[in-house]
Amino acid sequence: MNVRFTVGAMARVSQAHLDARRRQIIEAASRCFARNGFHATSMQDVLREAELSAGAVYRYFPSKDALVAAIAERAFAAIRAAYEDAASATPPPMPDELLGRVLGRVLVDTVPGADAGTFARLVVQVWTETLRNDLLGDTLREGYGAMRRVWADLVRAYREAGMLDSDVDPDDMARTLIAAAQGFIAQQALFGDVRVEGLQAGLRGLMSMRDPQAG
Amino acid sequence: MNVRFTVGAMARVSQAHLDARRRQIIEAASRCFARNGFHATSMQDVLREAELSAGAVYRYFPSKDALVAAIAERAFAAIRAAYEDAASATPPPMPDELLGRVLGRVLVDTVPGADAGTFARLVVQVWTETLRNDLLGDTLREGYGAMRRVWADLVRAYREAGMLDSDVDPDDMARTLIAAAQGFIAQQALFGDVRVEGLQAGLRGLMSMRDPQAG
Repeated sequence: MNVRFTVGAMARVSQAHLDARRRQIIEAASRCFARNGFHATSMQDVLREAELSAGAVYRYFPSKDALVAAIAERAFAAIRAAYEDAASATPPPMPDELLGRVLGRVLVDTVPGADAGTFARLVVQVWTETLRNDLLGDTLREGYGAMRRVWADLVRAYREAGMLDSDVDPDDMARTLIAAAQGFIAQQALFGDVRVEGLQAGLRGLMSMRDPQAG
Repeated sequence: MNVRFTVGAMARVSQAHLDARRRQIIEAASRCFARNGFHATSMQDVLREAELSAGAVYRYFPSKDALVAAIAERAFAAIRAAYEDAASATPPPMPDELLGRVLGRVLVDTVPGADAGTFARLVVQVWTETLRNDLLGDTLREGYGAMRRVWADLVRAYREAGMLDSDVDPDDMARTLIAAAQGFIAQQALFGDVRVEGLQAGLRGLMSMRDPQAG
């Protein structure tokens, strides 16, 4: 019993150490990429920023592509966790409330020690990189697929709570809400002058619209 | 009289010729960039694709950056024209209707002879390029500024027609609708499986939402 307990504790410590090191490298790479772009950043720059040896870094990430994919996966995990936290209430929070909480958290927390624009600039670069990198393409397809499912579940919950028209395709609405968040991130990267509260107000405006031609 | 008429006609022909040549180069460059990305495309590639001599191309565009800025300006002009066309009705068309018409036209018409994904991939690349190119940054800032004003005017028209809550900030709503379009373009570039009708249905779903907590 005693021995198994000790081994278990050691394995936990060791895993925690590995995770911390991995996180340290990912965060250093994120800062480099956001500052200088993927193309102008070398693995050497990442080593320097992380204050680690080449051996320590290559053990975790054999290439820049692997680093980029890990950054994207980490961002998706953070976004998913933020959605799941925010979506668990009954009735589910309205889209403006939910997107506000998730974007507020993700834009600030994903690259610790960096400003909100750092994450946004990274996302836009990952999109471009994805156009010609199949590994990254798979990561993004999977990440967005999971997000679409979370949002579609939420749309079904809205429907059950009588909060929206029952004939809306949950996936169409999921993609539209994800599009609003993606566009917000693009504007943050490009102009740096967006406010989450502005997106929330815009969504509330949209939800207040009435078509005079409709019955 | 006769002489002046002739000169005027000649000048018109010549301007039309210059415009056509400019368009030919921009379209060739758009195809190259969409196919191989900015970094992997050389001015040589553009010459070959346009079937023109170096002298003919450099006369119009001294650098790749100038070409990219011209492509972005052309896209904004096309988008603005599409909005202005679509927005001129009274009462103004609902956002789903308007975005559908504009995106449908822009995604297909901006790079003649190319598929809808070509334009979307170009846009995402321009965003990344903008992060470290001030000339492009100015072009985008101006282009989006003009789009925000067109949308904000439209939001005021919605308000006057009693189609939405009167206390919504037109610029917040303008940016949110532009964000939805940008996100749609990002999804088209990344996954290639979006439909304008899906975005329209999603917007209609959002417009049908009711907050059970509200009065």
